[in-house]
Amino acid sequence: MKIGVLGSGMVGSAIAGKLVSRGHEVKMGSRSASNEKATAWVSSAGKGASQGTFADAAAFGEIVFNCTAGAGSLDALQAAGAQNLRGKILVDVANPLDFSHGMPPSLFVGNTDSLAERIQAAFPEAKVVKALNTVNASVMVDPGRVPGETDIFVSGNDVGAKGEVTRILKDDFGWKSVIDLGDVTAARGTESYLHLWLRLWGAVKNADFNIKVVH
Amino acid sequence: MKIGVLGSGMVGSAIAGKLVSRGHEVKMGSRSASNEKATAWVSSAGKGASQGTFADAAAFGEIVFNCTAGAGSLDALQAAGAQNLRGKILVDVANPLDFSHGMPPSLFVGNTDSLAERIQAAFPEAKVVKALNTVNASVMVDPGRVPGETDIFVSGNDVGAKGEVTRILKDDFGWKSVIDLGDVTAARGTESYLHLWLRLWGAVKNADFNIKVVH
Repeated sequence: MKIGVLGSGMVGSAIAGKLVSRGHEVKMGSRSASNEKATAWVSSAGKGASQGTFADAAAFGEIVFNCTAGAGSLDALQAAGAQNLRGKILVDVANPLDFSHGMPPSLFVGNTDSLAERIQAAFPEAKVVKALNTVNASVMVDPGRVPGETDIFVSGNDVGAKGEVTRILKDDFGWKSVIDLGDVTAARGTESYLHLWLRLWGAVKNADFNIKVVH
Repeated sequence: MKIGVLGSGMVGSAIAGKLVSRGHEVKMGSRSASNEKATAWVSSAGKGASQGTFADAAAFGEIVFNCTAGAGSLDALQAAGAQNLRGKILVDVANPLDFSHGMPPSLFVGNTDSLAERIQAAFPEAKVVKALNTVNASVMVDPGRVPGETDIFVSGNDVGAKGEVTRILKDDFGWKSVIDLGDVTAARGTESYLHLWLRLWGAVKNADFNIKVVH
Protein backbone atom coordinates (compact mmCIF):
# COMPACT_ATOMS: atom_id res chain seq x y z
CA MET A 1 0.00 0.00 0.00
CA LYS A 2 1.12 3.59 -0.65
CA ILE A 3 1.25 5.53 2.61
CA GLY A 4 2.02 9.17 3.38
CA VAL A 5 3.63 9.99 6.73
CA LEU A 6 3.59 13.66 7.69
CA GLY A 7 6.44 14.50 10.06
CA SER A 8 10.10 13.52 10.25
CA GLY A 9 10.53 13.42 14.04
CA MET A 10 10.71 10.36 16.29
CA VAL A 11 7.08 9.40 15.72
CA GLY A 12 7.16 9.88 11.95
CA SER A 13 10.43 7.97 11.62
CA ALA A 14 9.21 5.10 13.78
CA ILE A 15 5.93 4.72 11.89
CA ALA A 16 7.37 5.25 8.42
CA GLY A 17 10.22 2.85 9.14
CA LYS A 18 7.91 0.11 10.39
CA LEU A 19 5.61 0.47 7.38
CA VAL A 20 8.54 0.24 4.94
CA SER A 21 9.84 -2.85 6.75
CA ARG A 22 6.40 -4.39 6.25
CA GLY A 23 6.64 -3.88 2.49
CA HIS A 24 4.65 -0.69 2.07
CA GLU A 25 5.73 2.26 -0.09
CA VAL A 26 6.08 5.25 2.21
CA LYS A 27 6.64 8.91 1.40
CA MET A 28 7.70 11.02 4.38
CA GLY A 29 6.40 14.57 4.18
CA SER A 30 8.10 17.64 5.64
CA ARG A 31 7.90 21.39 5.32
CA SER A 32 10.53 21.26 2.58
CA ALA A 33 11.21 18.52 0.04
CA SER A 34 14.87 18.43 1.10
CA ASN A 35 14.38 18.11 4.88
CA GLU A 36 17.60 16.68 6.35
CA LYS A 37 15.95 14.30 8.79
CA ALA A 38 13.75 12.93 6.02
CA THR A 39 16.77 12.53 3.75
CA ALA A 40 18.57 10.59 6.48
CA TRP A 41 15.50 8.43 7.02
CA VAL A 42 15.16 7.65 3.29
CA SER A 43 18.83 6.60 3.15
CA SER A 44 18.52 4.28 6.13
CA ALA A 45 15.07 2.87 5.38
CA GLY A 46 15.96 1.63 1.88
CA LYS A 47 13.60 0.27 -0.76
CA GLY A 48 10.09 1.72 -0.65
CA ALA A 49 11.10 4.90 1.21
CA SER A 50 10.87 8.35 -0.35
CA GLN A 51 10.39 11.92 0.79
CA GLY A 52 8.73 15.14 -0.32
CA THR A 53 6.71 18.07 0.91
CA PHE A 54 3.65 17.62 3.11
CA ALA A 55 1.58 17.97 -0.09
CA ASP A 56 3.71 15.39 -1.93
CA ALA A 57 3.28 12.85 0.88
CA ALA A 58 -0.46 13.43 1.23
CA ALA A 59 -0.99 13.13 -2.53
CA PHE A 60 1.12 9.95 -2.61
CA GLY A 61 -0.64 8.13 0.22
CA GLU A 62 -3.79 6.07 -0.08
CA ILE A 63 -3.77 6.54 3.69
CA VAL A 64 -2.00 9.36 5.56
CA PHE A 65 -0.51 9.44 9.07
CA ASN A 66 -0.28 12.77 10.90
CA CYS A 67 2.92 12.44 12.95
CA THR A 68 3.66 16.15 13.24
CA ALA A 69 3.91 17.90 16.61
CA GLY A 70 0.41 18.74 17.78
CA ALA A 71 1.04 22.49 17.89
CA GLY A 72 1.93 22.44 14.19
CA SER A 73 -0.51 19.80 12.96
CA LEU A 74 -3.21 22.04 11.51
CA ASP A 75 -0.61 24.13 9.64
CA ALA A 76 1.08 21.00 8.32
CA LEU A 77 -2.26 19.61 7.17
CA GLN A 78 -3.17 22.89 5.47
CA ALA A 79 0.15 22.63 3.65
CA ALA A 80 -0.68 19.01 2.78
CA GLY A 81 -3.88 20.29 1.20
CA ALA A 82 -7.53 19.35 1.62
CA GLN A 83 -7.65 18.09 -1.97
CA ASN A 84 -4.85 15.58 -1.18
CA LEU A 85 -6.67 14.30 1.89
CA ARG A 86 -10.18 14.10 0.41
CA GLY A 87 -11.81 10.73 1.01
CA LYS A 88 -8.68 9.30 2.61
CA ILE A 89 -8.09 7.84 6.05
CA LEU A 90 -6.08 10.32 8.12
CA VAL A 91 -4.57 8.62 11.17
CA ASP A 92 -3.96 11.31 13.78
CA VAL A 93 -1.13 10.28 16.10
CA ALA A 94 -0.39 13.80 17.42
CA ASN A 95 -0.91 15.10 20.93
CA PRO A 96 -1.81 18.75 21.62
CA LEU A 97 1.13 19.31 23.96
CA ASP A 98 1.71 22.86 25.19
CA PHE A 99 5.19 23.47 26.59
CA SER A 100 4.61 27.19 27.22
CA HIS A 101 3.72 26.64 30.90
CA GLY A 102 6.88 24.61 31.59
CA MET A 103 7.19 20.92 32.43
CA PRO A 104 5.28 18.69 32.47
CA PRO A 105 3.48 20.08 29.40
CA SER A 106 -0.22 20.90 29.47
CA LEU A 107 -2.59 20.55 26.50
CA PHE A 108 -3.62 23.46 24.24
CA VAL A 109 -7.03 21.90 23.60
CA GLY A 110 -9.09 19.52 25.71
CA ASN A 111 -12.06 18.88 27.97
CA THR A 112 -14.86 19.77 25.51
CA ASP A 113 -12.76 19.53 22.33
CA SER A 114 -9.67 17.75 21.05
CA LEU A 115 -7.00 18.06 18.39
CA ALA A 116 -8.56 15.20 16.43
CA GLU A 117 -11.92 17.01 16.40
CA ARG A 118 -10.27 20.23 15.21
CA ILE A 119 -8.59 18.30 12.40
CA GLN A 120 -11.84 16.54 11.46
CA ALA A 121 -13.65 19.90 11.44
CA ALA A 122 -10.95 21.52 9.27
CA PHE A 123 -10.88 18.56 6.84
CA PRO A 124 -14.46 17.26 6.78
CA GLU A 125 -13.82 15.08 3.72
CA ALA A 126 -10.98 13.18 5.40
CA LYS A 127 -11.74 10.18 7.62
CA VAL A 128 -9.90 11.03 10.83
CA VAL A 129 -8.96 8.12 13.11
CA LYS A 130 -7.20 8.98 16.36
CA ALA A 131 -4.77 6.23 17.29
CA LEU A 132 -1.42 5.39 18.90
CA ASN A 133 -1.11 8.69 20.81
CA THR A 134 -1.22 6.90 24.20
CA VAL A 135 2.24 5.30 23.95
CA ASN A 136 5.71 6.50 23.00
CA ALA A 137 7.05 6.16 19.46
CA SER A 138 8.98 2.96 20.11
CA VAL A 139 5.99 1.17 21.63
CA MET A 140 3.63 2.35 18.85
CA VAL A 141 5.34 0.10 16.31
CA ASP A 142 6.66 -2.55 18.70
CA PRO A 143 4.12 -3.24 21.44
CA GLY A 144 6.26 -6.19 22.58
CA ARG A 145 8.65 -3.68 24.19
CA VAL A 146 6.10 -3.61 27.02
CA PRO A 147 6.32 -6.90 28.93
CA GLY A 148 2.71 -8.04 28.88
CA GLU A 149 -0.32 -7.61 26.68
CA THR A 150 -1.69 -4.07 26.71
CA ASP A 151 -4.32 -2.06 24.81
CA ILE A 152 -4.30 0.53 22.08
CA PHE A 153 -7.29 2.70 21.14
CA VAL A 154 -9.02 3.99 18.01
CA SER A 155 -11.60 6.81 17.84
CA GLY A 156 -13.33 8.20 14.76
CA ASN A 157 -16.59 8.82 12.98
CA ASP A 158 -16.06 6.38 10.08
CA VAL A 159 -16.48 2.75 11.11
CA GLY A 160 -14.84 1.42 7.95
CA ALA A 161 -11.81 3.67 8.46
CA LYS A 162 -11.44 2.45 12.06
CA GLY A 163 -11.60 -1.11 10.80
CA GLU A 164 -8.84 -0.48 8.25
CA VAL A 165 -6.64 1.26 10.85
CA THR A 166 -7.27 -1.59 13.29
CA ARG A 167 -6.07 -4.04 10.62
CA ILE A 168 -2.85 -2.05 10.16
CA LEU A 169 -2.32 -1.79 13.93
CA LYS A 170 -2.66 -5.56 14.23
CA ASP A 171 -1.04 -6.86 11.04
CA ASP A 172 1.74 -4.29 10.58
CA PHE A 173 2.42 -2.97 14.08
CA GLY A 174 1.72 -6.11 16.13
CA TRP A 175 -1.05 -4.91 18.43
CA LYS A 176 -3.23 -7.75 19.71
CA SER A 177 -5.92 -5.69 21.45
CA VAL A 178 -7.40 -2.61 19.76
CA ILE A 179 -10.30 -0.97 21.61
CA ASP A 180 -12.79 1.14 19.65
CA LEU A 181 -13.74 4.05 21.95
CA GLY A 182 -16.41 5.52 19.67
CA ASP A 183 -16.61 8.61 17.51
CA VAL A 184 -13.95 11.28 17.12
CA THR A 185 -15.01 13.03 20.35
CA ALA A 186 -13.52 10.05 22.20
CA ALA A 187 -10.13 11.52 21.28
CA ARG A 188 -10.77 13.80 24.27
CA GLY A 189 -10.23 10.68 26.34
CA THR A 190 -6.96 9.53 24.82
CA GLU A 191 -5.52 13.04 24.50
CA SER A 192 -6.42 13.91 28.12
CA TYR A 193 -4.80 10.64 29.20
CA LEU A 194 -1.47 12.32 28.39
CA HIS A 195 -1.76 14.11 31.74
CA LEU A 196 -1.73 10.72 33.47
CA TRP A 197 0.83 9.25 31.06
CA LEU A 198 3.31 11.99 31.96
CA ARG A 199 2.92 11.30 35.69
CA LEU A 200 3.15 7.55 35.19
CA TRP A 201 6.35 8.09 33.22
CA GLY A 202 7.74 9.91 36.26
CA ALA A 203 6.63 7.08 38.55
CA VAL A 204 7.82 4.08 36.52
CA LYS A 205 10.90 5.94 35.19
CA ASN A 206 10.75 4.24 31.79
CA ALA A 207 8.78 5.44 28.78
CA ASP A 208 8.22 1.90 27.49
CA PHE A 209 5.01 1.34 29.42
CA ASN A 210 1.34 1.09 28.60
CA ILE A 211 -1.97 0.28 30.24
CA LYS A 212 -4.14 -2.83 30.12
CA VAL A 213 -7.86 -2.33 30.67
CA VAL A 214 -9.01 -5.12 33.00
CA HIS A 215 -12.73 -5.89 33.11
CA MET B 1 -9.28 4.78 64.14
CA LYS B 2 -11.84 7.63 64.11
CA ILE B 3 -12.63 8.63 60.53
CA GLY B 4 -14.84 11.37 59.09
CA VAL B 5 -16.48 10.74 55.73
CA LEU B 6 -17.96 13.80 54.03
CA GLY B 7 -20.79 12.86 51.67
CA SER B 8 -23.68 10.42 51.87
CA GLY B 9 -23.87 9.39 48.20
CA MET B 10 -22.65 6.15 46.64
CA VAL B 11 -18.98 6.95 47.21
CA GLY B 12 -19.42 8.09 50.81
CA SER B 13 -21.59 5.09 51.67
CA ALA B 14 -19.17 2.63 50.09
CA ILE B 15 -16.12 4.05 51.84
CA ALA B 16 -17.81 4.63 55.20
CA GLY B 17 -19.34 1.15 55.11
CA LYS B 18 -16.06 -0.55 54.33
CA LEU B 19 -14.25 1.35 57.09
CA VAL B 20 -16.90 0.40 59.68
CA SER B 21 -16.71 -3.23 58.59
CA ARG B 22 -12.96 -3.06 59.23
CA GLY B 23 -13.56 -1.94 62.82
CA HIS B 24 -13.11 1.81 62.49
CA GLU B 25 -15.42 4.39 64.06
CA VAL B 26 -16.90 6.43 61.22
CA LYS B 27 -18.99 9.59 61.29
CA MET B 28 -20.70 10.40 57.99
CA GLY B 29 -21.05 14.15 57.42
CA SER B 30 -23.81 15.84 55.44
CA ARG B 31 -25.21 19.32 54.97
CA SER B 32 -27.67 18.63 57.81
CA ALA B 33 -27.27 16.44 60.89
CA SER B 34 -30.50 14.61 60.04
CA ASN B 35 -29.73 13.77 56.39
CA GLU B 36 -31.99 10.86 55.39
CA LYS B 37 -29.39 8.94 53.39
CA ALA B 38 -26.93 9.23 56.28
CA THR B 39 -29.59 8.05 58.73
CA ALA B 40 -30.28 5.03 56.55
CA TRP B 41 -26.57 4.30 56.31
CA VAL B 42 -26.10 4.52 60.10
CA SER B 43 -28.99 2.08 60.62
CA SER B 44 -27.60 -0.45 58.17
CA ALA B 45 -23.91 -0.10 59.02
CA GLY B 46 -24.33 -0.87 62.71
CA LYS B 47 -21.74 -0.54 65.49
CA GLY B 48 -19.19 2.21 64.92
CA ALA B 49 -21.35 4.22 62.51
CA SER B 50 -22.66 7.69 63.31
CA GLN B 51 -23.70 10.81 61.47
CA GLY B 52 -23.61 14.59 61.80
CA THR B 53 -22.93 17.77 59.91
CA PHE B 54 -19.88 18.22 57.71
CA ALA B 55 -18.28 20.04 60.67
CA ASP B 56 -19.21 17.24 63.10
CA ALA B 57 -17.65 14.61 60.85
CA ALA B 58 -14.49 16.62 60.21
CA ALA B 59 -14.03 17.34 63.92
CA PHE B 60 -14.59 13.66 64.74
CA GLY B 61 -12.11 12.21 62.28
CA GLU B 62 -8.40 11.77 62.83
CA ILE B 63 -8.46 11.40 59.05
CA VAL B 64 -11.17 12.79 56.74
CA PHE B 65 -12.40 11.52 53.34
CA ASN B 66 -13.93 14.00 50.89
CA CYS B 67 -16.60 11.95 49.11
CA THR B 68 -18.83 14.85 48.10
CA ALA B 69 -19.66 15.61 44.47
CA GLY B 70 -16.79 17.60 42.98
CA ALA B 71 -18.92 20.64 42.16
CA GLY B 72 -19.87 20.96 45.83
CA SER B 73 -16.60 19.89 47.44
CA LEU B 74 -15.17 23.31 48.28
CA ASP B 75 -18.48 24.44 49.80
CA ALA B 76 -18.74 21.23 51.81
CA LEU B 77 -15.18 21.63 53.06
CA GLN B 78 -15.82 25.27 54.01
CA ALA B 79 -18.80 24.01 56.01
CA ALA B 80 -16.56 21.34 57.54
CA GLY B 81 -14.28 24.13 58.69
CA ALA B 82 -10.53 24.74 58.28
CA GLN B 83 -10.04 24.40 62.04
CA ASN B 84 -11.50 20.87 61.93
CA LEU B 85 -9.19 19.85 59.08
CA ARG B 86 -5.99 21.45 60.42
CA GLY B 87 -3.04 19.04 60.44
CA LYS B 88 -5.23 16.14 59.31
CA ILE B 89 -4.99 13.90 56.29
CA LEU B 90 -7.77 14.83 53.84
CA VAL B 91 -8.29 12.08 51.27
CA ASP B 92 -9.86 13.67 48.21
CA VAL B 93 -11.89 11.10 46.28
CA ALA B 94 -13.99 13.63 44.31
CA ASN B 95 -13.92 14.29 40.59
CA PRO B 96 -14.61 17.76 39.13
CA LEU B 97 -17.41 16.55 36.86
CA ASP B 98 -19.38 19.20 34.98
CA PHE B 99 -22.72 17.99 33.63
CA SER B 100 -23.74 21.39 32.24
CA HIS B 101 -22.54 20.53 28.70
CA GLY B 102 -24.51 17.26 28.55
CA MET B 103 -23.19 13.72 28.52
CA PRO B 104 -20.53 12.55 28.85
CA PRO B 105 -19.63 15.13 31.49
CA SER B 106 -16.61 17.41 31.10
CA LEU B 107 -14.45 18.70 33.95
CA PHE B 108 -14.83 22.14 35.51
CA VAL B 109 -11.12 22.34 36.31
CA GLY B 110 -8.16 20.68 34.63
CA ASN B 111 -5.10 20.90 32.42
CA THR B 112 -3.05 23.38 34.50
CA ASP B 113 -4.99 22.91 37.75
CA SER B 114 -7.09 20.29 39.53
CA LEU B 115 -9.75 19.98 42.19
CA ALA B 116 -7.23 18.51 44.61
CA GLU B 117 -4.94 21.52 44.12
CA ARG B 118 -7.84 23.91 44.70
CA ILE B 119 -8.67 22.07 47.92
CA GLN B 120 -5.03 22.07 49.04
CA ALA B 121 -4.80 25.81 48.30
CA ALA B 122 -8.02 26.54 50.22
CA PHE B 123 -6.94 24.40 53.19
CA PRO B 124 -3.16 24.77 53.34
CA GLU B 125 -2.95 23.19 56.80
CA ALA B 126 -4.67 19.96 55.68
CA LYS B 127 -2.61 17.19 54.10
CA VAL B 128 -4.49 16.52 50.88
CA VAL B 129 -4.02 13.10 49.28
CA LYS B 130 -5.83 12.46 45.99
CA ALA B 131 -6.84 8.80 45.77
CA LEU B 132 -9.44 6.33 44.52
CA ASN B 133 -11.03 8.73 41.99
CA THR B 134 -10.05 6.52 39.03
CA VAL B 135 -12.51 3.69 39.77
CA ASN B 136 -16.19 3.48 40.60
CA ALA B 137 -17.43 3.33 44.20
CA SER B 138 -17.78 -0.46 44.30
CA VAL B 139 -14.26 -1.08 43.04
CA MET B 140 -12.75 1.52 45.41
CA VAL B 141 -13.46 -0.67 48.42
CA ASP B 142 -13.44 -4.07 46.70
CA PRO B 143 -10.72 -4.16 44.02
CA GLY B 144 -11.38 -7.88 43.60
CA ARG B 145 -14.52 -7.00 41.62
CA VAL B 146 -12.13 -6.44 38.73
CA PRO B 147 -10.87 -9.83 37.53
CA GLY B 148 -7.12 -9.29 37.66
CA GLU B 149 -4.64 -7.20 39.58
CA THR B 150 -4.90 -3.49 38.77
CA ASP B 151 -3.44 -0.25 40.10
CA ILE B 152 -4.67 2.60 42.24
CA PHE B 153 -2.90 5.96 42.58
CA VAL B 154 -2.01 8.47 45.31
CA SER B 155 -0.87 12.08 44.78
CA GLY B 156 -0.05 14.66 47.43
CA ASN B 157 2.59 16.93 48.91
CA ASP B 158 3.02 15.13 52.26
CA VAL B 159 4.97 11.89 51.95
CA GLY B 160 3.90 10.68 55.39
CA ALA B 161 0.24 11.29 54.58
CA LYS B 162 0.56 9.34 51.33
CA GLY B 163 2.15 6.49 53.28
CA GLU B 164 -0.72 6.42 55.78
CA VAL B 165 -3.33 6.50 52.98
CA THR B 166 -1.46 3.75 51.13
CA ARG B 167 -1.63 1.62 54.29
CA ILE B 168 -5.41 2.13 54.51
CA LEU B 169 -5.83 1.37 50.78
CA LYS B 170 -3.93 -1.88 51.24
CA ASP B 171 -4.99 -3.08 54.68
CA ASP B 172 -8.59 -1.87 54.75
CA PHE B 173 -9.63 -1.71 51.10
CA GLY B 174 -7.60 -4.60 49.70
CA TRP B 175 -5.48 -2.83 47.07
CA LYS B 176 -2.25 -4.70 46.30
CA SER B 177 -0.61 -2.10 44.06
CA VAL B 178 -0.64 1.59 45.01
CA ILE B 179 1.39 3.88 42.73
CA ASP B 180 2.67 7.20 44.11
CA LEU B 181 2.41 9.70 41.23
CA GLY B 182 4.08 12.59 43.02
CA ASP B 183 2.90 15.85 44.51
CA VAL B 184 -0.67 17.18 44.49
CA THR B 185 -0.30 18.50 40.93
CA ALA B 186 -0.31 14.87 39.78
CA ALA B 187 -4.04 14.93 40.54
CA ARG B 188 -4.30 16.62 37.13
CA GLY B 189 -3.39 13.21 35.75
CA THR B 190 -5.92 11.12 37.63
CA GLU B 191 -8.71 13.69 37.29
CA SER B 192 -8.11 14.12 33.53
CA TYR B 193 -8.16 10.32 33.22
CA LEU B 194 -11.92 10.58 33.81
CA HIS B 195 -12.26 11.60 30.16
CA LEU B 196 -10.77 8.25 29.17
CA TRP B 197 -12.59 6.35 31.94
CA LEU B 198 -15.96 7.55 30.61
CA ARG B 199 -15.15 6.35 27.07
CA LEU B 200 -13.79 3.04 28.34
CA TRP B 201 -17.02 2.57 30.30
CA GLY B 202 -18.90 2.98 27.02
CA ALA B 203 -16.60 0.48 25.30
CA VAL B 204 -16.51 -2.26 27.95
CA LYS B 205 -20.14 -1.65 29.02
CA ASN B 206 -19.43 -2.41 32.68
CA ALA B 207 -18.28 0.10 35.30
CA ASP B 208 -16.35 -2.54 37.25
CA PHE B 209 -13.12 -2.07 35.32
CA ASN B 210 -9.72 -0.59 35.99
CA ILE B 211 -6.31 -0.25 34.43
CA LYS B 212 -3.03 -2.04 35.06
CA VAL B 213 0.14 -0.17 34.26
CA VAL B 214 2.47 -2.61 32.50
CA HIS B 215 6.17 -1.78 32.38
